[in-house]
Amino acid sequence: MRFLHTADWHLGKQLHGYSLVEEQEDAFNQIEQLALQYHVDAVVVAGDIYDRGIASEKSVQLGNQMFARLNRDDHLPLLVVSGNHDSAPRLATGAPWYADQGFVLRTTLNDCLTPVTLGDTQFFLLPFFGLQAARNFLGQPVKTMDEAVGQLIARMRDNFDSTKHHVLVAHFFASGSLRTESETPLEVGGLGPVSLSQLECFDYVALGHLHTHTALRHPKIKYSGTPVKFSVGEARDQKGCWLVDTTAGTREFLPLTPLHDVVVLRDKFAALVGPDHPHLDPETFVAVQLTDKGIIPDAMNQLRQFYPRVIEMTRVNGVTPAPRKIKEVQRTAPLDVLTAYYEDVAGEPLSSVQQEIAAAVLGKVEAMHDAP
Amino acid sequence: MRFLHTADWHLGKQLHGYSLVEEQEDAFNQIEQLALQYHVDAVVVAGDIYDRGIASEKSVQLGNQMFARLNRDDHLPLLVVSGNHDSAPRLATGAPWYADQGFVLRTTLNDCLTPVTLGDTQFFLLPFFGLQAARNFLGQPVKTMDEAVGQLIARMRDNFDSTKHHVLVAHFFASGSLRTESETPLEVGGLGPVSLSQLECFDYVALGHLHTHTALRHPKIKYSGTPVKFSVGEARDQKGCWLVDTTAGTREFLPLTPLHDVVVLRDKFAALVGPDHPHLDPETFVAVQLTDKGIIPDAMNQLRQFYPRVIEMTRVNGVTPAPRKIKEVQRTAPLDVLTAYYEDVAGEPLSSVQQEIAAAVLGKVEAMHDAP
Repeated sequence: MRFLHTADWHLGKQLHGYSLVEEQEDAFNQIEQLALQYHVDAVVVAGDIYDRGIASEKSVQLGNQMFARLNRDDHLPLLVVSGNHDSAPRLATGAPWYADQGFVLRTTLNDCLTPVTLGDTQFFLLPFFGLQAARNFLGQPVKTMDEAVGQLIARMRDNFDSTKHHVLVAHFFASGSLRTESETPLEVGGLGPVSLSQLECFDYVALGHLHTHTALRHPKIKYSGTPVKFSVGEARDQKGCWLVDTTAGTREFLPLTPLHDVVVLRDKFAALVGPDHPHLDPETFVAVQLTDKGIIPDAMNQLRQFYPRVIEMTRVNGVTPAPRKIKEVQRTAPLDVLTAYYEDVAGEPLSSVQQEIAAAVLGKVEAMHDAP
Repeated sequence: MRFLHTADWHLGKQLHGYSLVEEQEDAFNQIEQLALQYHVDAVVVAGDIYDRGIASEKSVQLGNQMFARLNRDDHLPLLVVSGNHDSAPRLATGAPWYADQGFVLRTTLNDCLTPVTLGDTQFFLLPFFGLQAARNFLGQPVKTMDEAVGQLIARMRDNFDSTKHHVLVAHFFASGSLRTESETPLEVGGLGPVSLSQLECFDYVALGHLHTHTALRHPKIKYSGTPVKFSVGEARDQKGCWLVDTTAGTREFLPLTPLHDVVVLRDKFAALVGPDHPHLDPETFVAVQLTDKGIIPDAMNQLRQFYPRVIEMTRVNGVTPAPRKIKEVQRTAPLDVLTAYYEDVAGEPLSSVQQEIAAAVLGKVEAMHDAP
């Protein structure tokens, strides 16, 4: 059988204060089109449907619509688990009724040992869980996530039908994975990574949690990554989802095209606002990395005229010179303060004409100040 | 056909800081038993399932379980609308799948003109709505709730099948109703009451919003009231739900028994803590109304020894005497202060023996104070 593996939708997520709803809807539309185009037999979503346990009303509407589109309109079986960002009890709303239509939503360990069989494949659904939940379920004093997952998989294997393929859908941090900056670490409370060796009994492991599909370079244990870029660190990341064929034993990464991309511009300020500046869709999310060292007054506002959605401005070579001490400035003649400031900002001294004008203006100001 | 009419479950509601989960679960169990005992064809819930738009995880679990019990375990059709306390988008989660099993959950005006037909009866489901939503839906500049409901009902009547009975399920404030203290008024924003005359085209109107079933004394327009007492003002209220038979044209109020009652005790303090004090289940919620006028030191703590769940203590006759001014007290001899205080509290003067002891102790204290 053939399925799409996606995860980490994080509905409601914002990028530096910008809503990503439009991007998420567009990415979802592409996922839906890929599911139809490749005639998949199911769609797997490996956790973190929502960005927050208490999702906004708008996010809840969006999530409900997406699931309804895939399951009710497109008649696709869905296999979904909750992630660490989801509120398991809230996400569970409706689950018994969903199951009637082949939409299997699991938010607790209760049914994780019982596979869902679709065609030639057994799916084991393991939502995100805490160690105490694992101890309660297993009746064993497990100390790490690795140990908990190991014991759960040992019990799943008792239910393996050897005539079928076996897929695990789960949401955890797999050992050896690389992080990106938009993830929330799971090690809090000593959850720890899960070692790959004990996952290898599956024909495919559809993981959620890490935000890039290259986080783990293993032939059959995969993160799908997020459908949308969630941080500047993901600017060069190719988003997409996995097309998995258990019968043929193949996995293909299907790319998604960003509606509005996240782009890093690293250059001198003058180049970014000059006549040959890069031309981007004005809704592109832009991280500016300035290579200049000098002070640039009002830089952000000037950049926004070319790139309305500047989400970040950093100085990759630092800024010189260090600001003067106020006492020192107070002791300096006004014309000398102006001259030094101009040199800092413009990178060159005042011309003789500029010096004359400056001296004349400052003279007038001083005269006004001295008048009764 | 025959149905139960309940409303205003307000899952998550607290009574003076006490969770009402146990009471709500118990009342629900009774409602379920009544539904089975009377072989009803449906259960109607007329809004305010949850007490807050963002219900706690525990409340969401409880609500999900209740609906699953009635619809999936007992195979009962459910007709549910959202109230002003519900978040319509959140409550709507799962609705398309619920409908497959005869659980019709309506949270917007979209389908309010299309009846749900069960047996010999057409049900029109009208969730709580704001005036702007009504204007958008009707395409008319309605100014009051009365006008909006009037126009909606006029359109519903176009869909009346004259061979059927007609029931309206709705959540609003009906004109002439009596309030209790645990309700949230709906008039904010000029919503206003809905007049009864335009509701009389229905064979029965199953209302939610007001918390007592006697709020409206109309033969066929009824509030069910809450299943549990939510305020001291409801202490003497009989909670329950309506059993409606549209074929026979009958309505019967079926009472529910409180798991832990809300009781008002109005008496002198001495009677409430004396040898003949009332004996109540220690989990009873007790509002104490003291008829005494004198100061009673540490009254609340003393009452809690007899009534662990005192939720309120009031003085129905006021308290005398007024407290003395601090300057006056400072000018009074210590023994006179003590004598006056004792008289305030105990309602009688110090005996001569008490006076002797008091004088002796105060003498020692003064001696200690004067020592070097």
